Amino acid sequence: MLDCIIVGMGPAGMSAGIYAKRSGLKTLILEKNTPGGLINTTNLVDNYLGFDDITGPDLAYKMFEHVKNNEVEYKIEEVTKIKKEDNFFTVETNKNTYKTKTVILAGGRSPRKVDIEDKLKNIKISRCSICDAPLYKNKTVLVIGGGNSAFEEGIYLSEFAQNLIIITRNQVTADAELLSQAKKKDNIKIIENEEVIDISEKDNRYLIKLKNEELLVDGIFSYIGYVPSTEYLSNLGILEGSGYIETKDTVTLVPGIFACGDIIKKDVYQIITACSEGATAALKAKTHIIKQKIED
Amino acid sequence: MLDCIIVGMGPAGMSAGIYAKRSGLKTLILEKNTPGGLINTTNLVDNYLGFDDITGPDLAYKMFEHVKNNEVEYKIEEVTKIKKEDNFFTVETNKNTYKTKTVILAGGRSPRKVDIEDKLKNIKISRCSICDAPLYKNKTVLVIGGGNSAFEEGIYLSEFAQNLIIITRNQVTADAELLSQAKKKDNIKIIENEEVIDISEKDNRYLIKLKNEELLVDGIFSYIGYVPSTEYLSNLGILEGSGYIETKDTVTLVPGIFACGDIIKKDVYQIITACSEGATAALKAKTHIIKQKIED
Repeated sequence: MLDCIIVGMGPAGMSAGIYAKRSGLKTLILEKNTPGGLINTTNLVDNYLGFDDITGPDLAYKMFEHVKNNEVEYKIEEVTKIKKEDNFFTVETNKNTYKTKTVILAGGRSPRKVDIEDKLKNIKISRCSICDAPLYKNKTVLVIGGGNSAFEEGIYLSEFAQNLIIITRNQVTADAELLSQAKKKDNIKIIENEEVIDISEKDNRYLIKLKNEELLVDGIFSYIGYVPSTEYLSNLGILEGSGYIETKDTVTLVPGIFACGDIIKKDVYQIITACSEGATAALKAKTHIIKQKIED
Repeated sequence: MLDCIIVGMGPAGMSAGIYAKRSGLKTLILEKNTPGGLINTTNLVDNYLGFDDITGPDLAYKMFEHVKNNEVEYKIEEVTKIKKEDNFFTVETNKNTYKTKTVILAGGRSPRKVDIEDKLKNIKISRCSICDAPLYKNKTVLVIGGGNSAFEEGIYLSEFAQNLIIITRNQVTADAELLSQAKKKDNIKIIENEEVIDISEKDNRYLIKLKNEELLVDGIFSYIGYVPSTEYLSNLGILEGSGYIETKDTVTLVPGIFACGDIIKKDVYQIITACSEGATAALKAKTHIIKQKIED
């Protein structure tokens, strides 16, 4: 039996992995996609203390190296179900079934789709400015969203695009610093209190129908928030109304299950807070095993 | 008037500084000693995600560079008093008096002294293995303490010393991984349930009197916990019995004063948790100013 299975290998899961391994727990991290999670699609990380202006993928790589150098075991498998047994858990993946004394949920969340997105055919809305920015050199790009992500990625895209339009449904909520950076750029236009009603193709470009005007653009990016990746956890009774996991200092309503990072309901969703919660969850998992005197 | 004064420039204070500055707050960090705080005296940091096996001073330097590149203002001054006024605070230092809308307390804590330490004359107990290890090449060294710090620093010292003795008053509480590393070293001896009754000089060495035996050593290091640096805050009514600051998610009992890092009462005292709390405190300070509509 394992001591600790960590579901998800973003910053929260990797930090949990290092702390769990170093505290002597038999640990396995399960990740369905790529180590690093959402930071892989982030252009620049400015506020993870110690790394000044590092790209998201570079930071993810450094974190992953750190995990590998600590010999934390990990597998690329998708968790499909977690069941509570007497005083342990079974974790089912698309490939295996594992037994573990504790589970740390660190599966993060996914970008929210634009309302009309599922109705669109052959129209791609990108969430990865690093991946797709080079496609729009000297072209016109639309960014949907008014928060930090929309502005961070918008500023990055504006280095490639000739014209960049940021539209937000309400008012801009991005940090003052980011807003001021964006305003200094001649090629960025910010439209508040607008929303996308429809998108269609026109002359190999996209015609964007807003409430009050129309835009013709070459590329569309969206950064309008997230939905937690928790569908497969609905049997455990640990979710709140919006699908996030309820926790108190990483402890969930089920003893032995801990949660950290973007998957939990909280005030601050940052890389540094995710890493901190990962460390805390691992230390609490360790304490749980000692206190419950769970045997192999 | 300033928006935010941060007291202390360890990891918590520096992370708070970056977040406060980036969110548009007029920010000043006040530090009485050296940027970096206690990590300057730490040999190796293994568990701050992204930095694999970095020395404490190197990590402190990277963090400090990050702060400077973000042009966060800082001054080397010692805060002596903080007073709550109507809806702002006056912060007195050994050199100046400042007005600020919010205060973030991130002053950390200091190593606890050995019981008999104040009675000793001409006998130096070190807390900095990096600074002093080279003095004890091929000599015998005593480390007092049984937690992670004692073992981390003890293992480091054992690379220099010929013999290293770790004594702890109760049982070892260090992580399994650290304990196992120490046990693998032939030149480390661990004595549990012992304590130092007296220390005297003998033939240019130190004679250590324990309850049940005597040791003759060349150097003495102590890692037996900490006391928070909060004497100057006693007028504010935000401290608990042991002198730590009581907080809920970095919010103290005085609106407008936030606290983070080793200075607060909490479960996990780690660099990564301190940085996370620093970020949270800064974002809460920003929200406080907006909600209270405090004018300059």
